Amino acid sequence: MAGIQDVAKKAGVGIGTVSRVLNKNGYVSEETRKKVEKAIEELNYTPNEIARNLIQNRTNIIAIIVPDVAYPYFAELTSEIEKCLREHGYKAMICNTSEERSNEQAYLDMLSRNMVDGILTATHSLNIENYIKTHKPIVSFDTIEVDGEIPVITVDHKRGGKLAAQELLNAGCRKILQFRNREMPEHFTFFDRHEEFEKTVKEGGSECINEYVNWNDFNLKHCESVIEECIKKYPDVDGFFSTDSAVLSYMKIAQLKGYKIPQDIKFVAYDGTSIVYSAYPTVTVVAQPIKELACSGVELLLDIINGKKPEKYRITHKVKLIKGMTTS
Amino acid sequence: MAGIQDVAKKAGVGIGTVSRVLNKNGYVSEETRKKVEKAIEELNYTPNEIARNLIQNRTNIIAIIVPDVAYPYFAELTSEIEKCLREHGYKAMICNTSEERSNEQAYLDMLSRNMVDGILTATHSLNIENYIKTHKPIVSFDTIEVDGEIPVITVDHKRGGKLAAQELLNAGCRKILQFRNREMPEHFTFFDRHEEFEKTVKEGGSECINEYVNWNDFNLKHCESVIEECIKKYPDVDGFFSTDSAVLSYMKIAQLKGYKIPQDIKFVAYDGTSIVYSAYPTVTVVAQPIKELACSGVELLLDIINGKKPEKYRITHKVKLIKGMTTS
Repeated sequence: MAGIQDVAKKAGVGIGTVSRVLNKNGYVSEETRKKVEKAIEELNYTPNEIARNLIQNRTNIIAIIVPDVAYPYFAELTSEIEKCLREHGYKAMICNTSEERSNEQAYLDMLSRNMVDGILTATHSLNIENYIKTHKPIVSFDTIEVDGEIPVITVDHKRGGKLAAQELLNAGCRKILQFRNREMPEHFTFFDRHEEFEKTVKEGGSECINEYVNWNDFNLKHCESVIEECIKKYPDVDGFFSTDSAVLSYMKIAQLKGYKIPQDIKFVAYDGTSIVYSAYPTVTVVAQPIKELACSGVELLLDIINGKKPEKYRITHKVKLIKGMTTS
Repeated sequence: MAGIQDVAKKAGVGIGTVSRVLNKNGYVSEETRKKVEKAIEELNYTPNEIARNLIQNRTNIIAIIVPDVAYPYFAELTSEIEKCLREHGYKAMICNTSEERSNEQAYLDMLSRNMVDGILTATHSLNIENYIKTHKPIVSFDTIEVDGEIPVITVDHKRGGKLAAQELLNAGCRKILQFRNREMPEHFTFFDRHEEFEKTVKEGGSECINEYVNWNDFNLKHCESVIEECIKKYPDVDGFFSTDSAVLSYMKIAQLKGYKIPQDIKFVAYDGTSIVYSAYPTVTVVAQPIKELACSGVELLLDIINGKKPEKYRITHKVKLIKGMTTS
């Protein structure tokens, strides 16, 4: 394969001149530029991107860390992040961490070794200290919150929890179940929605039951087995609140057991990924603005990479209640 | 930041010795190894991965090209590919191409510029020639089929189409609708399922209507508008066959208009992503073995990267019919 030296030799110029033509910077006369371009074409020379990265100490690659990209919320978030990164000339590397904690450390190490320019993380099973001590550009979704260290992109989960509870109360629910995460590390911003949901339900004079699913386990079978158990333990629950996929699974299993929706049991889903909009009965949902979350995370990260100190370390987006047949 | 020279100087050894310690190859005495490790620790030295890649001309990065990672089939395929790549020590870069054809060319160019070691593609909007002329490791899912050039991982789509048609015929359907792709480039292996579906329906004495959705358009709104139109044009269709998400959307819209499932209209979905398993009524589905597809694609690509000529240029996996309430 031809190298830059071969191009320079063939064109009868120095390596620096070839470099200026390739990078379109610095002065090169029209005549010389044509000679270099001719040599590049004749030798079928392709500039070595690795070598260029070495010089610039940049890879233009951003790592996206999610528990599992197969899970609808993370699939949509990843898709929007990739599109936004691409518009800014960056590539997206993805990493699923739900199965092994060590994956997450491996990606932090990549950041230290200059393999990626920054990280957008939507999970963390490691201690916050592991993140902070990289001293590299990291932006977190919904997770780590360390003022002045790692900026967080989130939504107003507290309001989301309140809206969901009010909707179920207004629909007449008296015994309401919500799924929470078992053994979840602290510092997740979405913790707020469960607290606020329970508080609002209780203030409304209804009962709130918390059931626990494994944290970071997005396996359909696990979710279904918890639902089966809940229906056995609390056959008279008349309201359910959880993420999109858990709500759809609950709706399926309840209907298989003869429950009518919304007569016997009402539902509010959280997230607003496309899967809820294809369900029947149509689902009442507290929707997150996934595209806005993705874009604000990307823009903030690129600012940090380019040496700009963030104005804010927490950007909070709004949630929206969209009414469906499951609460009417 | 400390470089390898600083480590060598501090440890009182040559750069080659530091390199042997870092790469764990060649002989280094126990004493020397300890001295080098101490110097590495004291200087907080992290080897520059970019520099190492430059020497090896490898990045250990594989690009995954999909139309849109938010779409459930591609989300699950991408997730399984990433897990499998990770087991083999590779990283996954993703690229959504549905919106712009130029993205796909950009990734082919990256391959030429040694930014990625290989490509797994589940789409192609470009001419096959663009792929072939890279002369680099590429494995394609369901798409390009060029003997001796680009290997293909696929399923027995012909059998998938036949199974779906037979199931709807056995359930008594007389006027069956299937969605196909408008203006799709040739050389897609899944073309077969639509042909075989139509043939089988006709041989069974029923009517087969083909309706067209935009190729590579995974927008829910687009799909819903085509469905609305179909229900208007063919109110008496009694069987529908399409991908998971189109089937779920059709089920929703039909029920909103008062159709009963399966009494008035029956459904068979294609793909078998997790979204169909959370639906009620439970859906009859022709399922692809997504994990097996992903792993065989990864293994084949890594063989090619490591200089092994593929034994087969087409690996065909089996599909499976899983019966649900939508056809019984």
